Amino acid sequence: MSAKKQEPKIVGTTESQPEGFKWVRLKKIDWEDETGKKTFAPRLITAVSRHEKRVWEAAERCTRAKSGVDAVAIIALLDHPSKPLSTVILEQYRPPIENTVIELPAGLVDEGETPEEAAVRELIEETGYGGDGEGAGTATVEDVSPILVSDPGMTNANMRLCTVRVKLSESDPEPKQKLDEGEHIVKRIVEVKELYNVLQEYDRKGFTIDARLAHWAMGWHMATRSNKE
Amino acid sequence: MSAKKQEPKIVGTTESQPEGFKWVRLKKIDWEDETGKKTFAPRLITAVSRHEKRVWEAAERCTRAKSGVDAVAIIALLDHPSKPLSTVILEQYRPPIENTVIELPAGLVDEGETPEEAAVRELIEETGYGGDGEGAGTATVEDVSPILVSDPGMTNANMRLCTVRVKLSESDPEPKQKLDEGEHIVKRIVEVKELYNVLQEYDRKGFTIDARLAHWAMGWHMATRSNKE
Repeated sequence: MSAKKQEPKIVGTTESQPEGFKWVRLKKIDWEDETGKKTFAPRLITAVSRHEKRVWEAAERCTRAKSGVDAVAIIALLDHPSKPLSTVILEQYRPPIENTVIELPAGLVDEGETPEEAAVRELIEETGYGGDGEGAGTATVEDVSPILVSDPGMTNANMRLCTVRVKLSESDPEPKQKLDEGEHIVKRIVEVKELYNVLQEYDRKGFTIDARLAHWAMGWHMATRSNKE
Repeated sequence: MSAKKQEPKIVGTTESQPEGFKWVRLKKIDWEDETGKKTFAPRLITAVSRHEKRVWEAAERCTRAKSGVDAVAIIALLDHPSKPLSTVILEQYRPPIENTVIELPAGLVDEGETPEEAAVRELIEETGYGGDGEGAGTATVEDVSPILVSDPGMTNANMRLCTVRVKLSESDPEPKQKLDEGEHIVKRIVEVKELYNVLQEYDRKGFTIDARLAHWAMGWHMATRSNKE
């Protein structure tokens, strides 16, 4: 293993967006690793396999707000006086996957919005909870994660996870979604302690599961199992 | 909201890879939504904003193995007779993020490998655990997740999460990584119950956190907190 001589750094990037694309683009990143290696030094270009690593190809959204955060996802904790702690997950068709994906409520952050505002807005739109309709309850943002990167080997896409507690009253009915025209999102209320099993069941039925939702459910499942051991 | 008349479906895709790119490409996806809307019907082209949604732009890796799964990530449960349950996380510089990212051990699945094989191979390479060196312990794959998608609004990138228990003996030293030339990955052993706090601390120090790792840690943290309430 080579010795570490410096912090890695980006020395140049080239963006590339084929005609007709407007939402995503590709980027070629020239960088120097911990040993100072980089591709475009002419003497290195002949040694292909190893030094190719020092050029990285990535994809990125063209829509990032000035806040520097693409999106928020929401763990809603539905806190009802006599029902078990529950959360809301969504079924949504995703063209890149060619399938309906089971996900947390989530959405892009609008210009000028805080993560907390975006989280509550998206929760209201996609689930009705936290809004002013019947059964909407009272939403409190309990935790905002650091900036998280969804797939750092491939894209710069990032997000924050917001945990939102929704206080419900005994007789609250399930609130109505406030979807935009053209949005087709099915919501499902799930007991948190059943979430891991529910995701397994969705998989068996042919749905695809979002990795972040599955990791949260797996963390909860393992903690519960570990406490019982 | 429009009525749902059919299952959504892809009616055509166009791949686009600018010259010089070989690892990632862009894709334009024409699809019909639940109401049968699609963009390329000439009568719809004049109404731009809504119907634009029916063409989706995505990015994808060019390297997917025949198994259909890009990558595996590993939650290692280090099971030591007298130490608290711990896991291994990695510090790795990621050019798309221009920063060092805190992640789970992970890697692309090689052609012909099962997810279990890829998980144990990557765990050995990146952490030493599960290999044949001193202190490597004995690795057992306890759980393999369904196929999970990392960012389904933007890419088709997918993975499986493998939970691997590593049985250690009382006097086992920390095993050595088996990194390839040019790989610069720092590993860190963390008590599972401290993981949430450790990630917060990394964020404060200026590192970036992987979303999947953070969601797992958040799920564990919430389950523990919820049991205490």
